[in-house]
Amino acid sequence: MKICRFDDQRIGVLRHGQVFDVTERLAPLLAVHAGAGDPLIAALPRLPAMLVDLSGCTPKPQDQVRWLAPVAQPGKIVAAPVNYHAHIAEMQANNVSPGFNITDIGKAGLFLKATSSLVGASQGIAQRFLDRRTDFEVELVVVIGRRADRVAAADALQYVAGYSLGLDITVRGTEERSFRKSIDSYTVLGPWLTTADELPGPGQLQITLHQNGELRQRGHTSDLVYGVARLIEFASSFYTLEPGDLLYTGTPEGVGAIRPGDRLRAECEALGAMDVTVRAA
Amino acid sequence: MKICRFDDQRIGVLRHGQVFDVTERLAPLLAVHAGAGDPLIAALPRLPAMLVDLSGCTPKPQDQVRWLAPVAQPGKIVAAPVNYHAHIAEMQANNVSPGFNITDIGKAGLFLKATSSLVGASQGIAQRFLDRRTDFEVELVVVIGRRADRVAAADALQYVAGYSLGLDITVRGTEERSFRKSIDSYTVLGPWLTTADELPGPGQLQITLHQNGELRQRGHTSDLVYGVARLIEFASSFYTLEPGDLLYTGTPEGVGAIRPGDRLRAECEALGAMDVTVRAA
Repeated sequence: MKICRFDDQRIGVLRHGQVFDVTERLAPLLAVHAGAGDPLIAALPRLPAMLVDLSGCTPKPQDQVRWLAPVAQPGKIVAAPVNYHAHIAEMQANNVSPGFNITDIGKAGLFLKATSSLVGASQGIAQRFLDRRTDFEVELVVVIGRRADRVAAADALQYVAGYSLGLDITVRGTEERSFRKSIDSYTVLGPWLTTADELPGPGQLQITLHQNGELRQRGHTSDLVYGVARLIEFASSFYTLEPGDLLYTGTPEGVGAIRPGDRLRAECEALGAMDVTVRAA
Repeated sequence: MKICRFDDQRIGVLRHGQVFDVTERLAPLLAVHAGAGDPLIAALPRLPAMLVDLSGCTPKPQDQVRWLAPVAQPGKIVAAPVNYHAHIAEMQANNVSPGFNITDIGKAGLFLKATSSLVGASQGIAQRFLDRRTDFEVELVVVIGRRADRVAAADALQYVAGYSLGLDITVRGTEERSFRKSIDSYTVLGPWLTTADELPGPGQLQITLHQNGELRQRGHTSDLVYGVARLIEFASSFYTLEPGDLLYTGTPEGVGAIRPGDRLRAECEALGAMDVTVRAA
């Protein structure tokens, strides 16, 4: 299943190039949600049975919708630094962020991004601090489906609801990652969420980023230092993950500076493509 | 006004040593909340008029309630590192966290703590990683009352709903602060929220921490490197603050290690006192 949020916080299901508006269909289910986490993601296992027949749900061509982040209310956004070797090497060569003196993810730990920084593809990036270097970083994003407290890597994929593409927009500098990566609109998620059952496996995905039509990043998740299962084990050894929590898995090499007017395209065969524009804040 | 959450997520108002249960009184107001932020904090300006007369609200002696965090759903928890000079000096002498090579808060930036780490005083601290040094850090905490986007320091205090006491429990080590300070239960808030109108000013507060009856920290907020107004200006220059967002202002000198069985007491004349016990996770 491919599920999205679009236009004015409508909930949609993608089929055959159309986005079917299932907001009214799901309203009774979401109204009774109690407990931690994003209501839609917590209810995700019950959706397929409700959405077999989409008659009565208005379709809209997918190239005409305004994409919002498919997870509306993540409790937290966790992200992995230094998780592709070739990216570590390029950052050390550039020497733009002092934090890169720690290149072992086990020692660097994970970091948080503010949930207030989250936007969907169509909302775009509003760039601040135009005198500071600010980079795109394309990533595979894991959407947590169930409460996960100290789970082993061998069991970890059972806690995944699905996957999306992400951009972890990053001001370089001396501040903690959780500050300089948390500016409003600096966490892009989309274009939709693909449930885990539709993927070959989180370690078998090629992800690309084009900037203004030029290929800038091409990574493969088989090159992750900590794969998805190990990341969930690592994160949940410190804190409990809840439905809707997001896990940005780290960026491959090829990061580069953005400027207002840029058009970024993140793409993965299994997860779709999203176009994101950059403007001045 | 002093407002709290207690027992089974009841909402209470403190008067004359009693906690009056105002949950039912406020239910209609909170049911219509729409928009970002914690519903109770967003509604705070409308509460005094509704709570002049507390007849019909059951009182309970304040020494018999179980204190939860007075803000139930903060969107984010922001915290200030290196914000008292004497604390910076002690950390440099101890050399336990590599991040302390950046001692200018303007260069270090602020950091995030996971909202899943938030507990109230009576919930206590469940200590993990018993082989690693883990410290108490007592702090003044600002509760944001209104959406704040790029506000100037001169206007910043208008965005404050009130203040509480906080403990920023911290594993020392090489990981980013946003990871090693985000373990479940490592962010304590309480015992209640005191609205800003009841305080002399956020720069005129003495805060102490006792560990097992011994005075360990005694700080005065007049010694903050970045005071509350400057912190709000700094934070809101990066991201939008919403009602209920918390701002931990940094800890004075005297931090020290906790162990299971410890009893911590944080105290401030204007904000109350909270007793917090430490157990093994």
